[in-house]
Amino acid sequence: MTKIAVLGAGSWGTTFAKVMADAAVLGGDLPSIMLWARREEVAAEITDSHSNATYLGETRLPEMITATTDLAEAVHGAEIVVLAVPAQSLRSHLQIIRENLESSAVLVSLIKGLERGTDLRMSEVIAAELGVGPDRIAVVSGPNLAMEIAREEPTASVVACASEQTAERVAALCKNQYFRPYTNTDVTGVEIAGIVKNVIALAVGICDGQKLGDNSKASVITRGLAETTRLATVLGGRLETFSGLAGLGDLVATCASPLSRNRSAGRLLGEGLTAEEATAQLSQTAEGMKSGSAVVELARQHEIEMPICEAVVAVLDGKLPVDRLASLLLARDLKAEGR
Amino acid sequence: MTKIAVLGAGSWGTTFAKVMADAAVLGGDLPSIMLWARREEVAAEITDSHSNATYLGETRLPEMITATTDLAEAVHGAEIVVLAVPAQSLRSHLQIIRENLESSAVLVSLIKGLERGTDLRMSEVIAAELGVGPDRIAVVSGPNLAMEIAREEPTASVVACASEQTAERVAALCKNQYFRPYTNTDVTGVEIAGIVKNVIALAVGICDGQKLGDNSKASVITRGLAETTRLATVLGGRLETFSGLAGLGDLVATCASPLSRNRSAGRLLGEGLTAEEATAQLSQTAEGMKSGSAVVELARQHEIEMPICEAVVAVLDGKLPVDRLASLLLARDLKAEGR
Repeated sequence: MTKIAVLGAGSWGTTFAKVMADAAVLGGDLPSIMLWARREEVAAEITDSHSNATYLGETRLPEMITATTDLAEAVHGAEIVVLAVPAQSLRSHLQIIRENLESSAVLVSLIKGLERGTDLRMSEVIAAELGVGPDRIAVVSGPNLAMEIAREEPTASVVACASEQTAERVAALCKNQYFRPYTNTDVTGVEIAGIVKNVIALAVGICDGQKLGDNSKASVITRGLAETTRLATVLGGRLETFSGLAGLGDLVATCASPLSRNRSAGRLLGEGLTAEEATAQLSQTAEGMKSGSAVVELARQHEIEMPICEAVVAVLDGKLPVDRLASLLLARDLKAEGR
Repeated sequence: MTKIAVLGAGSWGTTFAKVMADAAVLGGDLPSIMLWARREEVAAEITDSHSNATYLGETRLPEMITATTDLAEAVHGAEIVVLAVPAQSLRSHLQIIRENLESSAVLVSLIKGLERGTDLRMSEVIAAELGVGPDRIAVVSGPNLAMEIAREEPTASVVACASEQTAERVAALCKNQYFRPYTNTDVTGVEIAGIVKNVIALAVGICDGQKLGDNSKASVITRGLAETTRLATVLGGRLETFSGLAGLGDLVATCASPLSRNRSAGRLLGEGLTAEEATAQLSQTAEGMKSGSAVVELARQHEIEMPICEAVVAVLDGKLPVDRLASLLLARDLKAEGR
């Protein structure tokens, strides 16, 4: 019997456990799926009541999903270890599980972010901390708002791994009636797309807050994806990834959804709040506010122009009045598209 | 003094006349801009009251814009002739203006559609009917909902022409504080993007009508753009056009906007109305409903898979129950993205 561990019982970790359980029932295989939760009461609720009300409301979880608060127990014997913890705590979790990890286990990251201080992507943190090769590290990303997937609304996604074979294995484990994974071997591109997306979503939120219309927002999304692509290609990512589900798809879903934290934070900025005031009102820092300056730094190191990310960071830093953002983006000289 | 003619005084033709007038004031040049309107009362309102209330509400038009109902008068002496009439009547209008056209006039199409019967794109109809070379035919397309531009909300757009020089000339004529044109030489790609977009917008509207969420719609937008790109590249269009403003940008704006006729028609289909019932309720046929079958025919001729367009046409023809569309799109075999 296959054992799958999922570390992190927030909305996306829990939902992805359900996706895999529903896939297993379809496939006739019945793996055990063990979630690791930080809090005892969440673990107990998942195992005993088959729900995780804090994150997924009334969604009922399949009975093959159990939960524990013991990291070592969760990963013991697991062939697949799915990572869904916050970006900044990934490394410390990996250090704890390292000695209990099966020698052939495949690591699957659901996390979007750069590690602060090192500016490393999550797959790079995994490789460095566990010493596993790229054929055992996969990334899942796409237009995947967790609540909608928990309600079994159909969507597509991307499973990326340097090894097409591993990508196909992970894709087979999560394909079901409402979740359709495509495979891709461009791990760098998929990760960069997920990181920069949150900064672009802030820009789109700012347009909302400034009461700009759908043309303006579509222009920001399009030019935003173009600058993301420029950055990713110098880092080794592939062009096609950005017109795909993990690039365009994720960006469009995030920018359309009222559920997006980054877009909500942008809206507050657009209405004139400072970064501190917006964070206070949302009771949390939106991911794009954390990674924006790291993205801009990375772009400067590689001499890539990213005018939208730069403008967003300038607004966050209080260096650009928010009502000048849209006209600034349009004020650049006439030129050919793509340049 | 430069003279510019704009044929068609609907919302987009009138708005584009205003865009060029505002660009001229900025540039210090003062051309005469003459709109051709089919109806006498519309022409009189534009010339005398500087408004076009039927299409643009209270928008005030610059005084350098006048209007006539005489096609020969409109194009006489015009260096630039902008075409904003319905796709199916373009050819007959061209036949009337042919003998009054200046021998060096540049034609600029704002029209999205295929000519029924011939399946020709608008630039092809212009070339065939007027015998002008590709260096004198430009196309403008992008995330350009007319009402928002009339309100001077900032947006970007694409001016495409086989001649970069002509594209730059047209771009300079319409660049102002709220309208930012990029140039492109891929006329085929820009036109195909605008045509297929309306069919994809129907699919997104159907998802709305079926109460599906933002993940599903983002997946349809992403995979829809991928199949549009496949068709356009076999016809000679370029990949980059589709991740740009005329591809992605226009598609995202249309699919986000409650103002889009195609999305509204799709929503009614998604709620279970037939194509005839939806058309009756909207008092007009959405463009995607007219061009859908031509697009699918073209794809079959070139052996291109376009599963979303095919599914939409099957729904329109009553051959596919609308509640099966989303799951059908997700039911295809696992495969690598991009294939």
